[in-house]
Amino acid sequence: MPGEFDFIHWIRSRQSVGGIVSLAAGDDLAIVDWPQNDLLLVGVDQVLDGVHFDSAKHSPELIGRKVMNRNLSDCAAMACLPAAALVSVALPQAMSLEYARQLYTGIQQAGETFGCPIIGGETGTWEGRLAVVVTILGRSAGIEPIRRAGARAGDGVYVTGPLGGSIHGRHMTFTPRVELARKLAQQAPPNRPTAMIDLSDGVSRDLAHICAESGVGAVIDADSVPVHPDAMQIAPQEPGSGLHHALHDGEDYELLFTCPGRPVEGTRIGTITAERGIFLQMGTMRVVLEPGGWEHRNFR
Amino acid sequence: MPGEFDFIHWIRSRQSVGGIVSLAAGDDLAIVDWPQNDLLLVGVDQVLDGVHFDSAKHSPELIGRKVMNRNLSDCAAMACLPAAALVSVALPQAMSLEYARQLYTGIQQAGETFGCPIIGGETGTWEGRLAVVVTILGRSAGIEPIRRAGARAGDGVYVTGPLGGSIHGRHMTFTPRVELARKLAQQAPPNRPTAMIDLSDGVSRDLAHICAESGVGAVIDADSVPVHPDAMQIAPQEPGSGLHHALHDGEDYELLFTCPGRPVEGTRIGTITAERGIFLQMGTMRVVLEPGGWEHRNFR
Repeated sequence: MPGEFDFIHWIRSRQSVGGIVSLAAGDDLAIVDWPQNDLLLVGVDQVLDGVHFDSAKHSPELIGRKVMNRNLSDCAAMACLPAAALVSVALPQAMSLEYARQLYTGIQQAGETFGCPIIGGETGTWEGRLAVVVTILGRSAGIEPIRRAGARAGDGVYVTGPLGGSIHGRHMTFTPRVELARKLAQQAPPNRPTAMIDLSDGVSRDLAHICAESGVGAVIDADSVPVHPDAMQIAPQEPGSGLHHALHDGEDYELLFTCPGRPVEGTRIGTITAERGIFLQMGTMRVVLEPGGWEHRNFR
Repeated sequence: MPGEFDFIHWIRSRQSVGGIVSLAAGDDLAIVDWPQNDLLLVGVDQVLDGVHFDSAKHSPELIGRKVMNRNLSDCAAMACLPAAALVSVALPQAMSLEYARQLYTGIQQAGETFGCPIIGGETGTWEGRLAVVVTILGRSAGIEPIRRAGARAGDGVYVTGPLGGSIHGRHMTFTPRVELARKLAQQAPPNRPTAMIDLSDGVSRDLAHICAESGVGAVIDADSVPVHPDAMQIAPQEPGSGLHHALHDGEDYELLFTCPGRPVEGTRIGTITAERGIFLQMGTMRVVLEPGGWEHRNFR
């Protein structure tokens, strides 16, 4: 493919920035006039060929959408407003400029859905596989961020949608819950979430993150967990398989949160406890819910 | 290697943050209380195995140092103060946890030299090659950023050190010119640089970036270009080889800037012209200086 500079020109020509962004890609760094009184939230998320997507199977637009949506989902997890993003692409030499354009178009379109422009980045070709990294900047914009720490004994545990089986395709096509997170977070206590995370690693693992940061435990009510039809398909003949996948599969990208009052949305699936440990209540039986989520080491 | 969560714990245990950073790695996003009146400068830079380093030859500490120093050099290019960084690592499955720790230690130590903590990041293992991406946040901190646009006809063209032959090792071990950039930029006009860039792609290409953004041309005086001893070693028998490498090699990471007055440091190598085009003056002969810098496509 042509040199990286042509690609940077193309990217610049596609960018429409303004507002707080006073200088976008094309210099050594972008310049942002950060709004006074807004906290800056920032994170980075990568997608790797063979781990988070399969370049032989998924289109470049879909891959681009996924990496941006994962970052937008991180914004949702903290109830902040996506403000701007930077992209870094390691492109295999065999991939064409057209491929890179499609990848970038996917990234850009996913960002535009939430008013999040690309303000910088870098594309390099190499003999390695396709890796795409997005850095996202979010604004508190009038809403105090919701952290993982903050859950208290007695809080309900909630999820924003049915879970499990995202491997059937939803892991590439999900919609990040940015607007829903802002709606949940702008409620007054006790109806405002006390802790929140997006479900990238699965309930069993992501709830463990909340409990560890908050210094609490939890009991999940098996009958209350909303199981996605996709989760039922994986091993329909096996009893409890749907629930298992709903609790342990990753990449649902729904929100998992705790709340002492009545949240404006969400399905209650359990209760936070002062006693440490995470348990699954199945009728009269209570079992330890071992973290079984995915550690991003196997392809999904 | 063990799962990524162990590694994230280790990273967290090594981080000492404070000041404007109110929450570092361990949640979905880091939270920064951005200083009022400070512009936010942000950029991303990746290093790829076989392109920017050779993992069979260079130590993980050195690789880590390089990627952080490249980002710090971008801060220098705009005369901003490094504030915080985020790291993303795509780690080959064959590499050990100890390797990852050494890589991260190199990144962290390079950042600490300039008061730049790591506030977030992600490590994932894959079947691909080693790729490391750093995102850097910089603060204007009382000094207006210097852009590539801003050079005016009559300005002198300056560099901050001898050039060429960085392939002999300096491309891995350079010191980013952060303090020097701040010193240059805090001078009053006409002694303050009007445009600046760090020399990652070579004078011929990086000066072309300044000229393109500023809408000007330049004449470089061949006799004035400071040639690094490393540049002389490459083809000592070939006349003009040292100058050639000084003008076209990449990865010097010195600053290239323009200034109408007397900058506090720097060697003058030429003059900005109203007429477009970049020329090399060799005695009475004036030749077109074609961009010959490296496009990050070949290993150095």
